[in-house]
Amino acid sequence: MKIPVFEDIIDAHQLIKDFIHCTPVLTSTAINRITGTEIFFKCENLQKTGAFKFRGASNAVFSLTDEQAARGVGTHSSGNHAAALALAARMKGIQAQIVMPSNSPEIKKKAVAGYGGIITYCEPTLQARESTLLKIAEETCIEIIHPYNNFNVIAGQGTAARELLEAIPHLDIVMCPVGGGGLLSGTALSVKALSPSTKVLAAEPSGADDAYRSLKAGYIIPSIHPKTIADGLLTSLGEINFVIISKNVDDIVTVSEESIVKAMRMVWERMKLIIEPSSAVPLAAILENKEAFSNQRIGIILSGGNVDLENLPF
Amino acid sequence: MKIPVFEDIIDAHQLIKDFIHCTPVLTSTAINRITGTEIFFKCENLQKTGAFKFRGASNAVFSLTDEQAARGVGTHSSGNHAAALALAARMKGIQAQIVMPSNSPEIKKKAVAGYGGIITYCEPTLQARESTLLKIAEETCIEIIHPYNNFNVIAGQGTAARELLEAIPHLDIVMCPVGGGGLLSGTALSVKALSPSTKVLAAEPSGADDAYRSLKAGYIIPSIHPKTIADGLLTSLGEINFVIISKNVDDIVTVSEESIVKAMRMVWERMKLIIEPSSAVPLAAILENKEAFSNQRIGIILSGGNVDLENLPF
Repeated sequence: MKIPVFEDIIDAHQLIKDFIHCTPVLTSTAINRITGTEIFFKCENLQKTGAFKFRGASNAVFSLTDEQAARGVGTHSSGNHAAALALAARMKGIQAQIVMPSNSPEIKKKAVAGYGGIITYCEPTLQARESTLLKIAEETCIEIIHPYNNFNVIAGQGTAARELLEAIPHLDIVMCPVGGGGLLSGTALSVKALSPSTKVLAAEPSGADDAYRSLKAGYIIPSIHPKTIADGLLTSLGEINFVIISKNVDDIVTVSEESIVKAMRMVWERMKLIIEPSSAVPLAAILENKEAFSNQRIGIILSGGNVDLENLPF
Repeated sequence: MKIPVFEDIIDAHQLIKDFIHCTPVLTSTAINRITGTEIFFKCENLQKTGAFKFRGASNAVFSLTDEQAARGVGTHSSGNHAAALALAARMKGIQAQIVMPSNSPEIKKKAVAGYGGIITYCEPTLQARESTLLKIAEETCIEIIHPYNNFNVIAGQGTAARELLEAIPHLDIVMCPVGGGGLLSGTALSVKALSPSTKVLAAEPSGADDAYRSLKAGYIIPSIHPKTIADGLLTSLGEINFVIISKNVDDIVTVSEESIVKAMRMVWERMKLIIEPSSAVPLAAILENKEAFSNQRIGIILSGGNVDLENLPF
């Protein structure tokens, strides 16, 4: 198991910088007053394909050898990684095979198709997703790009925190949500390399708290029947991710569904930014623990903005 | 009638720069592909109080003499200017008297009150708004800050286009919406000073096309019974605004309600930015006239993001 280090994030940044947006870091006086903190929001909801996922996917695609690239890439995903991989592949001029559960939201299907991904639908089970993708991979020899348990994907995700710390040094805390751990592991590597005294915290819904429990237990506890509105955070930690997180993440804070919706709406109303529920989880953690965060300078990575406007939680 | 020039915009910028956000300029590959243009969006929806109005209001407030400031400021408004003036006054440490029609949306009332404005409600007619404000002004000697027909307000609004052109030079066109003409007149002054060959275009809803008809006629035609979803663009042109617009604006393009909603939704979905209907009017003009705008480099000022999330047009 090859574990990325900060130098791999620097290399990734060099490779992808002309393809990604260097997203803005925004602040809100109103939210600072409400929370009693100073928060710097790194807006990966404004990243290409509407999520940080494009950083990792493009690093994975642009790191392929010519021989690998010629065979194309593939993944199974109903979410942001699928769209990110499809666009990265199109930019590289190669094929992306995307296995999607047949019950994926129409908006996600349209996004992947719009970026030129070749979609194969399957039954909505993890087993069907994996077997369908494996079948395609055997036939076509595509390179499978895992959404988070992948060296190059983690190195790519780490570039967001690097940009944040270069724009805003001297942060007390950097926070991001945790699902499979791709963003969190990349973020932790960047923060601990660039600003060792800065704490790295993850925030996770109480209804999908497998990362919290895994960190406490010291081994990966899979996510079984998770239940949360934060649809990007349902997955279990990956192995590479867990190794990095165990060593570099200071703590994981769990939050209620109610706080997630409240934080999401606060960012929409106060900052005029569309964020998806997963993105709101770190702010929700601050709202639930105001005293602990009081007067801290906090960087938050807003992970994505892909929501179905027909189906808002408020 | 004192007409501002570009030097007044430079002075305004110097005065307000520590109080405003220098808002980001964002692009969308998807929207560029759909329109066949290259668009640079200046995100004044991310400005303090959620609209460009804060630039003009803060310039007006910070330009007051100590004697004027001691007496406070006031305006009548149901919209973004009210919130902007209330916040600017609070930053200066002075009182803001805001006359609001009793039927103003709750969200606007809360915003003004949240920024510390002293609200007086009146009947929802222009006459009641003006007479109520005049009565307060007579009693308290406050300085009345008109939302657009005001020298310092126009100079403040011009700072947005100046930032846009400094970030992105060599634009073929700069566009913004037109209501009373505060943003348009300030924008036109900045653009014609910094980049004389760049065209300045305004976009206006067909159902509130008084500025279009005024520019053609050569005199101000008042807005009577305007009907549009773009609630920021219902007002008639001011006199100072009309003088500047007549001399510096190349053309005004009118658009349908359907295109406004389509453009608004496109920015929400593709850019993850919350914009109000008024902000969508320039993009709507491009969508309706793709051939005329083909291959142009266009700067658009997204004027604001204050919408009622309970009452979306989609």
